[in-house]
Amino acid sequence: MDDLLTRLRAGLPSEALLTDPDVTASYAHDMASFCDAGTPAVVVLPSTVEQVRHVMRTATALRVPVVPQGARTGLSGAANASDGAIVLSLVRMDRILEISPVDRIAVVEPGVVNAVLSRAVGEHGLYYPPDPSSWEMCTIGGNIGTASGGLCCVKYGVTAEYVLGLDVVLADGRLLSTGRRTAKGVAGYDLTRLFVGSEGTLGIVVRAVLALRPQPPRQLVLAAEFPSAASACEAVCAVMERGHTPSLVELMDRTTVRAVNRLGRMGLPESTEALLLAAFDTPDPAADLAAVGELCTAAGATQVVPAEDAAESEMLLKARRMSLTALEAVKSATMIDDVCVPRSRLAAMLDGTAAIAAKYDLTIGVCAHAGDGNTHPVVCFDHTDPGESRRARESFDEIMALGLELGGTITGEHGVGVLKKEWLARELGPVGLELQRGIKRTFDPLGILNPGKLF
Amino acid sequence: MDDLLTRLRAGLPSEALLTDPDVTASYAHDMASFCDAGTPAVVVLPSTVEQVRHVMRTATALRVPVVPQGARTGLSGAANASDGAIVLSLVRMDRILEISPVDRIAVVEPGVVNAVLSRAVGEHGLYYPPDPSSWEMCTIGGNIGTASGGLCCVKYGVTAEYVLGLDVVLADGRLLSTGRRTAKGVAGYDLTRLFVGSEGTLGIVVRAVLALRPQPPRQLVLAAEFPSAASACEAVCAVMERGHTPSLVELMDRTTVRAVNRLGRMGLPESTEALLLAAFDTPDPAADLAAVGELCTAAGATQVVPAEDAAESEMLLKARRMSLTALEAVKSATMIDDVCVPRSRLAAMLDGTAAIAAKYDLTIGVCAHAGDGNTHPVVCFDHTDPGESRRARESFDEIMALGLELGGTITGEHGVGVLKKEWLARELGPVGLELQRGIKRTFDPLGILNPGKLF
Repeated sequence: MDDLLTRLRAGLPSEALLTDPDVTASYAHDMASFCDAGTPAVVVLPSTVEQVRHVMRTATALRVPVVPQGARTGLSGAANASDGAIVLSLVRMDRILEISPVDRIAVVEPGVVNAVLSRAVGEHGLYYPPDPSSWEMCTIGGNIGTASGGLCCVKYGVTAEYVLGLDVVLADGRLLSTGRRTAKGVAGYDLTRLFVGSEGTLGIVVRAVLALRPQPPRQLVLAAEFPSAASACEAVCAVMERGHTPSLVELMDRTTVRAVNRLGRMGLPESTEALLLAAFDTPDPAADLAAVGELCTAAGATQVVPAEDAAESEMLLKARRMSLTALEAVKSATMIDDVCVPRSRLAAMLDGTAAIAAKYDLTIGVCAHAGDGNTHPVVCFDHTDPGESRRARESFDEIMALGLELGGTITGEHGVGVLKKEWLARELGPVGLELQRGIKRTFDPLGILNPGKLF
Repeated sequence: MDDLLTRLRAGLPSEALLTDPDVTASYAHDMASFCDAGTPAVVVLPSTVEQVRHVMRTATALRVPVVPQGARTGLSGAANASDGAIVLSLVRMDRILEISPVDRIAVVEPGVVNAVLSRAVGEHGLYYPPDPSSWEMCTIGGNIGTASGGLCCVKYGVTAEYVLGLDVVLADGRLLSTGRRTAKGVAGYDLTRLFVGSEGTLGIVVRAVLALRPQPPRQLVLAAEFPSAASACEAVCAVMERGHTPSLVELMDRTTVRAVNRLGRMGLPESTEALLLAAFDTPDPAADLAAVGELCTAAGATQVVPAEDAAESEMLLKARRMSLTALEAVKSATMIDDVCVPRSRLAAMLDGTAAIAAKYDLTIGVCAHAGDGNTHPVVCFDHTDPGESRRARESFDEIMALGLELGGTITGEHGVGVLKKEWLARELGPVGLELQRGIKRTFDPLGILNPGKLF
């Protein structure tokens, strides 16, 4: 331990090294519930690539595990510390190095906050789409590590589609440059994409070249009330089948609507079984919303209300964005699931989740990126009640089993981390798992990078 | 050899096995010039996944190399046979298994021809964007192997962005399923993407889940004549900087324009130094073309001609699509380069290429996916003239060196194959190359999958 600190100090300024146990303890967790976390030996906050390389060389020399962290807003425990580990926080590497409107790229350090980047590129008429709910806090490095999604994905895709190239410090401190700053490129295996979603298990991202788009027109939102989840899903399928390209298609169930009203006094309609939000950022969003409104009515919507202006649209999005937080206030504890199914199976997923809630006698609120088939069932329970806690865990697992049965995945955007690592093996199967472990060994033969995560 | 054939016959119908040397010799090459090819031991044409598995199990048992092939339209020699190898042609696995307008996916076998798929999904109002020039012949499996691009990429991206999931037969015959049929998914490392562009060196793709988009409105094309490549590039940069989203931005230099006129009597303007084509498939393409036309004029265009209708647009695209073929007719031989640079460096790339042509006293015609910064300099030479052949090879290399110097890549969409494998090492550097080789070993420890390609 003394040796570790002495060696780290040799290449880090003193303010980049935290050892006070009360302080380092505050770096132990991300925002996932019920995921184990250990006690880190030290927290380092490098501000240069060379300092990161020094940390990794030290970790390799002493065989000390390293847990990379961004803003710790993750929901799967991927950034949780392990005992005796170096917690490597990238938040001080927060410079936007370049924004090029001609090449439509930005070059950033990993600690740049998503919203800061979004605003900065907006000033150049550009748009960085990925928008996880935590976008005001989460970092680009964390977004890359977990392959974050958000509300935009139904039209604009996920973080992976915006990462063109990376500089990565490897486990042994060597520096790897992957990918490109060009629009296209096929020189060799796509290592860039391999790092996206790898949850810090393959290397430390210290620089990213991101693709940007031109800023679209401001989106206009429509809210539609449905008498059942199934009818709302029917509307979603009809919208996509007819070839519409909404910029957002979100669903909140009755539990979520009520929780949001309770938290935020939002005045959402509490009698609805499913509230659907759809938006367009097209040249004529009102016309597109009118067409979608008709499809909603045909699918059984009892009420269809287009927002009158940008302010009303923003209010509806705010309601949607606070859903997870609102559901967390329903009971003393929550487990947030992230199952994604083909959108044609969304109704089956939602009905099945309701059946699971009834079977286990639990409150499970669901909000969903419905256009993507990506549901967030939130199991609300009293963690001081052992029986209810056990039932919560069982229902959480049963929801994932249902997702796999419907041709889906256990995680659409939150990642595996600690929370779902047993389930990853189930989704991948033995052949896939063996190859994934082989890749891990290729990049991290000593197994010091974020051990105990993913696998 | 007898053992090989006996074993292969045990799991393949007789019509799936070709051994006549005159016949098998016709499978030795793809469409790349000046790439070595060996004499295959046998050509197999399986029609089921089980047959592919049998071939790979046999190859592993006998340590025989396997060269996977689609339509052999590739331009880098990636599908060239090696001596004694099993050539594994996937063209008989050509079924479209599913098209889902709700989920916006297609599930296909690897031998499906790109244009066949495009038309089939078009009947459902859907669109599969990747459109390499060879789209009437090339297969989806080949497109995945080489990560093909095309004219659509400036708006719709490359093949990689449309591959959601794969079934892959591994070197030892095991079957791997990767990815998903959902819109999103982050369960583990992205093995799907790793296979895209891997040129048959990691496994045999036997099934693919592809993402589709709604069919856009028919595109309208504009042609603009420029007095120099630099002024055309200035226009391209201005178009992108102003936030336009053209569905195509193509450039043909004077040599290309003349070659196309000679081959196809297209009536393109021969006095122009650079002919730029831009297109929009937006709701109001005429308005967008008008705005782009103004930017062209401001950048120095001497003539701006929007197509009057779809037929005229199609004629211009046809001219562009025949560029490589037309340039091949200029002299007895060609070498086709594929350098991609940041679009802000496109003018430097084109001027530099012209300087290289002058230095080596060669004709180098250039057509380019200008919106992507992806240039195809085509070195035209007399292959019976040893001096000219040597200069051609040297200029080809110098073009790649220039591309790297300008922050680009040696290959935007054609791949590495045999043609550029020395250059791949130069682009990746030693650290990247070592990791790529490590991945190769993880998937193919015996090194039987398409040996001598990529590395």
